[in-house]
Amino acid sequence: MKDKNIVVIGGGTGIFTVLSGLKKYPVKLSAVVSMADDGGSTKVLREEFGILPPGSVRPALVALSDSEEKIANLFNYRFTQGSLKNHNFGNILITALTEMYGDFEKAITEAGKLLNIKGRVIPSTLDNARLFAQLENGQIIKGETNIDIPKHNGRLKIKKVYLKPRCKANKQALKAISKADLIIIGPGDLYTSIIPNLLVKGIPQAIRKSKAKKIYICNLMTKFGETNNFKGKDFVETIEKYLGKNVLNYVVFNNKKPSKARIAKYEKEKANFVEYNKKDFSSPQKQNFQIIEGNFLRTRGFIRHCPEKLAKTIMKILFEQS
Amino acid sequence: MKDKNIVVIGGGTGIFTVLSGLKKYPVKLSAVVSMADDGGSTKVLREEFGILPPGSVRPALVALSDSEEKIANLFNYRFTQGSLKNHNFGNILITALTEMYGDFEKAITEAGKLLNIKGRVIPSTLDNARLFAQLENGQIIKGETNIDIPKHNGRLKIKKVYLKPRCKANKQALKAISKADLIIIGPGDLYTSIIPNLLVKGIPQAIRKSKAKKIYICNLMTKFGETNNFKGKDFVETIEKYLGKNVLNYVVFNNKKPSKARIAKYEKEKANFVEYNKKDFSSPQKQNFQIIEGNFLRTRGFIRHCPEKLAKTIMKILFEQS
Repeated sequence: MKDKNIVVIGGGTGIFTVLSGLKKYPVKLSAVVSMADDGGSTKVLREEFGILPPGSVRPALVALSDSEEKIANLFNYRFTQGSLKNHNFGNILITALTEMYGDFEKAITEAGKLLNIKGRVIPSTLDNARLFAQLENGQIIKGETNIDIPKHNGRLKIKKVYLKPRCKANKQALKAISKADLIIIGPGDLYTSIIPNLLVKGIPQAIRKSKAKKIYICNLMTKFGETNNFKGKDFVETIEKYLGKNVLNYVVFNNKKPSKARIAKYEKEKANFVEYNKKDFSSPQKQNFQIIEGNFLRTRGFIRHCPEKLAKTIMKILFEQS
Repeated sequence: MKDKNIVVIGGGTGIFTVLSGLKKYPVKLSAVVSMADDGGSTKVLREEFGILPPGSVRPALVALSDSEEKIANLFNYRFTQGSLKNHNFGNILITALTEMYGDFEKAITEAGKLLNIKGRVIPSTLDNARLFAQLENGQIIKGETNIDIPKHNGRLKIKKVYLKPRCKANKQALKAISKADLIIIGPGDLYTSIIPNLLVKGIPQAIRKSKAKKIYICNLMTKFGETNNFKGKDFVETIEKYLGKNVLNYVVFNNKKPSKARIAKYEKEKANFVEYNKKDFSSPQKQNFQIIEGNFLRTRGFIRHCPEKLAKTIMKILFEQS
């Protein structure tokens, strides 16, 4: 039997979590990642070299790495002084490879070889664009980082996000999606890591067309300035707004609330635990997907999904007769 | 039979040439490299991070690499724009590893693993010092680069060079020298790549004490500001001034003059082909070493030694009954 193809769509620590759990299983993994990142080291390198955001592929590359841990550590190493300050080593490596080969995709392939990755990392687009958000009061926010680390009133809802100029999909991403047996969307920052992929012309269309089972994994915590006060249904409705209705087959919710002490650490960032109510999805028009509930919480530290628990559930869905 | 131990002492493109030829033979290679470099990317990284010169180990690491050529190319890749301008990727890698491990030697070891090197690269000292030169007119030049790329009158002879503060030898360098079956000094920039190793307290003493055969490989071209108008005997006498008399067993001279066209390219840099005269070494007091003459010239391009021809001669010396 051939290994099943799984496409994971997202970016940042969310995609890291999903991939690092799944890479232990005998499946073919493709990570389709957002090209909207424009903060920190990535901002500088984008501006100076006119390249696509190296920091956006880094988490997926490291997650899929089958090398020693110290190589992943090196890749994530961030300089703390001098002219290299705030640069991640991995970002510099991807920049050097992009300059050497004159090709961002080739650079990712070569970085993947150095990290001995299991699977592929595919930019959702190879077009260079910026992410914009329009808030409910009409204000326009330019740039992924300005949405991610809000200078605006973070209580205001985001009315819509868009890429400018408009981007067309990377053919490799479309190919991976069309061949997929399973497509996983999320978890991750909704407007800055997940939806930027769905803004790329061709990507949502390809997902809709694909025969793969489609899973959305809902976030554990809200994010001030992006998903303030969001409940489970807000996350799902937002995804469906950009992906289309009746596309998702499964939505994964975590039902284990972290300890007050763990949540308290997030209060400074005005982030809350995401609650959901099954009744929100109870009418037949709304519930076109199966809800998977469970304890997906990491037992300690950051409030993030446990890679192993998530991977186990994903594999169960993959092999379930539909 | 155990593989023989060869220690190559030098730096820069000279040590690259010797090592890249020798690595094809079944011998144990140790490159003992100067820590005096302070120009370009290395200067910035030394100043900003207070580390030893990453650029000084790079040529030896790349020469010993058994990885694909593209990894060596990446290591040598030099950024041409932005805040990373003039930095070699390899220098940035060694800096990141030094910061991660807090240890320059460990960083070299780890970089060596990434490059899959055959052999070892050993800094002659782990002390952080600067190279100074006193010219024949008394003028003091501070810094390796200021000697290497002279702002002073390059026709003036260097009276002496010294390190400040004084440095003691890296124990690993002493160990490698004491265990060596063969020690090769040069080729390379005499005052800025070769002799800085001999200025480290303990290194010339260890070489003198070692039972290894000792070879000096004379440069092919003079260098304005360092070895202007030098003949073979000037090179040898300068080495002996810092190493001691009656230490060298072999001196290798190239007797093949490059074409006028190839030499002409060096005229801009005021560099000349190094001539030598066997008669200079004919008195019994002077000739305590065997002179090896031959065509060691690369057939095209830069006027440098041919790695294969050099390696062949070195191996012959190694296995010759003395």
